[in-house]
Amino acid sequence: MTMLRVCIFFFVASFGNHALAAQTEKQFVDLIAYGDYVLTMQADEQLIEDGAVAVLQGVIVGVGPAAEIDSYFTAAKKLDGANKVLMPGLVNGHTHSAMVLFRGMADDLPLMTWLQEYIFPMEGRYVDPALIEAGTRLACWEMIRGGITSFVDMYFYPDVIANVAVNCGLRAVVAAPMIDFPSPGFKGWDDSFAAGVAFAEKWKGKHHRITPALAPHAPYTVSKPHLDAAFKAARILDIPVSIHVAEDRAEVNVVREKYGMSSVELLAGLGMLKQPTVAAHVVWPTDADIAKLAGSQAGAIHNPTSNMKTGAGFAPVPKMLAAGVNVGLGTDGAASNNDLDLWQEMRLAALIHKGNSNDPTLVSAMQALDMATRMGAHAAGLGDKVGVLQTGRQADMIQVSLESPRFDPLYNIMSHLVYIAKSGDVVTNVVAGHVLMEMGEVATVDIGSVRAGIRKIAAEIKADLKNR
Amino acid sequence: MTMLRVCIFFFVASFGNHALAAQTEKQFVDLIAYGDYVLTMQADEQLIEDGAVAVLQGVIVGVGPAAEIDSYFTAAKKLDGANKVLMPGLVNGHTHSAMVLFRGMADDLPLMTWLQEYIFPMEGRYVDPALIEAGTRLACWEMIRGGITSFVDMYFYPDVIANVAVNCGLRAVVAAPMIDFPSPGFKGWDDSFAAGVAFAEKWKGKHHRITPALAPHAPYTVSKPHLDAAFKAARILDIPVSIHVAEDRAEVNVVREKYGMSSVELLAGLGMLKQPTVAAHVVWPTDADIAKLAGSQAGAIHNPTSNMKTGAGFAPVPKMLAAGVNVGLGTDGAASNNDLDLWQEMRLAALIHKGNSNDPTLVSAMQALDMATRMGAHAAGLGDKVGVLQTGRQADMIQVSLESPRFDPLYNIMSHLVYIAKSGDVVTNVVAGHVLMEMGEVATVDIGSVRAGIRKIAAEIKADLKNR
Repeated sequence: MTMLRVCIFFFVASFGNHALAAQTEKQFVDLIAYGDYVLTMQADEQLIEDGAVAVLQGVIVGVGPAAEIDSYFTAAKKLDGANKVLMPGLVNGHTHSAMVLFRGMADDLPLMTWLQEYIFPMEGRYVDPALIEAGTRLACWEMIRGGITSFVDMYFYPDVIANVAVNCGLRAVVAAPMIDFPSPGFKGWDDSFAAGVAFAEKWKGKHHRITPALAPHAPYTVSKPHLDAAFKAARILDIPVSIHVAEDRAEVNVVREKYGMSSVELLAGLGMLKQPTVAAHVVWPTDADIAKLAGSQAGAIHNPTSNMKTGAGFAPVPKMLAAGVNVGLGTDGAASNNDLDLWQEMRLAALIHKGNSNDPTLVSAMQALDMATRMGAHAAGLGDKVGVLQTGRQADMIQVSLESPRFDPLYNIMSHLVYIAKSGDVVTNVVAGHVLMEMGEVATVDIGSVRAGIRKIAAEIKADLKNR
Repeated sequence: MTMLRVCIFFFVASFGNHALAAQTEKQFVDLIAYGDYVLTMQADEQLIEDGAVAVLQGVIVGVGPAAEIDSYFTAAKKLDGANKVLMPGLVNGHTHSAMVLFRGMADDLPLMTWLQEYIFPMEGRYVDPALIEAGTRLACWEMIRGGITSFVDMYFYPDVIANVAVNCGLRAVVAAPMIDFPSPGFKGWDDSFAAGVAFAEKWKGKHHRITPALAPHAPYTVSKPHLDAAFKAARILDIPVSIHVAEDRAEVNVVREKYGMSSVELLAGLGMLKQPTVAAHVVWPTDADIAKLAGSQAGAIHNPTSNMKTGAGFAPVPKMLAAGVNVGLGTDGAASNNDLDLWQEMRLAALIHKGNSNDPTLVSAMQALDMATRMGAHAAGLGDKVGVLQTGRQADMIQVSLESPRFDPLYNIMSHLVYIAKSGDVVTNVVAGHVLMEMGEVATVDIGSVRAGIRKIAAEIKADLKNR
């Protein structure tokens, strides 16, 4: 730990060396968070035993051994680290938050039955700004509770979603949905495109935690000229695109039949590889597609639970990782999951590819952690802001309690985080230096009123399902 | 709900009809457990809203709507059911409990490296009765905490394991390990066989919660004459066999090369299909094997996490279920899991086969629940005792709290139990009418002293791993 890395901003000017620093007045910062283990996810110094992170104005200003941090900094607010891991907050790279409203409404059905008899009709009848607000608030509670600090959302009424994210304290990439068919709030492409662009213009630079994005739904639901228009608009506005790509074989077959190429090739021709793109799913890329995605501006978001639940299959994650594709993790919407638990996705990312390839070495615990934090942040277009505990980055971080006997004995903290930790083990959630949850209690969502609202809506949906 | 089903034992003699029952003195039972939802897992009446179960001398004497149960029974001990599901306890059909000692010691390695450089040497150096006792106690804490009420164990020093199960209150099938190689406590087959038979003779009929069994390790580690001897001894002693079967392709290939047949065919020739056998894994059966297993006395235990983690693959569970094989669920040992969470296995059982077959209808939530309870009990040879909430069965049952907002909204309780519930949501664990856990607090394991012991052993193992 060098002075240069610990001390930035005005601090670096005031002290010349360690010995002096320890004897001089300490810098007063907003927050110091501790951990028996600090997992920085920096390549060079991943794990610090008995470490700490100092935070000023939402930004990390010091990472190191607790004794060193305490010798340079002091703070009114301290987060105790006994029996805890302090690590970067998790990045949920793909979700449709408000779909928590439909979780468990229908499961274990053929994809088209599920979509056409349950999801689409209920979306058509019930999705309005009030439902989106209630659902997104419930989802944000669940994400904060489970240690997610950033999420990439793609659902109707993005303005409502962005406002909920602002209010509950989470960081979000909120992508405005654009689709060729009539959908909640839209008659079709033209007004979905116009509304999406208006949303992006309104939110660009409006709030430091919100990144607006455009979400042309998928290569099979948006025509090529419309996809082209969306990618162009995103380039002009300098914002990311979020899109479903190669989710299942049906899509890949349709695209190949229609365009004579793969979904990735189609989108590559429209700019996907050269502009920030969050490509959700990518279950059926060809080897050539994977080579194209590697080193490109497009990140792939792996959604293992959803991909299994809908029967899409197993994304070739080991191949993508080996090729150098930025792969993140996502929960997808809770209608196909049925919760928003990135620990579950992390564990599955480490397990299913071993099973699918009969190779127990594929996707290590460390790679799964990387997909949920550092690499996932890059895949979501947030790599310059979050994903590692490092001076200069946003202070998005969580504490995981090792209190449960499930964590005994402890040989390797990374293994335990991936193969044993559950969302309920997260006890602290900090975004941009703000403590959204402490001691397991979410502070920024009034969950009582949220639940009451959700139950009222669900009762109507249930009655509707029964009566039809 | 007929009188006949509610009222058994002395009760059935005293009352003639509903009206009379309600006005007469109530039967005093040991325990009444309630649930906003009572999932009986009986085929005809799976879910009772606002229900209850009455228990006398460890046996279920009434199952029905809470109002009816309250009109017939009263009890000093009542378990409140507000916002809870009452359901049969989970059956962990295959584990090596004490291997919690090695969890996270080594992961993501080739199978042979993992076994030969980590597991076997550490077992050789550290496994003794004291380690088995400490590890099994930790494992029992974890199983009780997570809603498991019965487990099938196969590990060294079965006498110690059985005593721990007795003391912590769990129901167990404890299988004595028999193997052709030197192992902790044995020089080879002869003394492992003799010790196993002696264990079985000692424990047969000794304690109502303990079923002794014999565990010839696997078709590739025990010669055919020795397998034959083990199956014969189990027949003579009238106890089950527990054995690893067709776990990975390497085994299946070795057996075919050596015997010209599949593992299932080999064992079928020795009696497996005609005597109670708990066949663990069964990842690589042929279609003919599956047909043989269907309707036989052998149950197959599916261990999805372990099978993925070791690279064994995906067992053909949908085919086995369709054929009518009794399939249960297991955690396997925590060295290849790395915890003992049957909720995780239930969810995986419902998810991975959808993904592997690209068919979202395969393995429904209800089937996964069935594998963890009713059918799993049959697969573990405990089907006449536990697995359903029904009069005459042992009172092995759990309460799952729906307190978390993760369960909102609620359309279908079975879906939420499989796709959302986590081991931490279990708040009550009852075995044979004894309350082992209430309000999430395990009463029968002094976890503080267990942890201290575990940490001492683990420190030695860690130092050993570092120094070699």
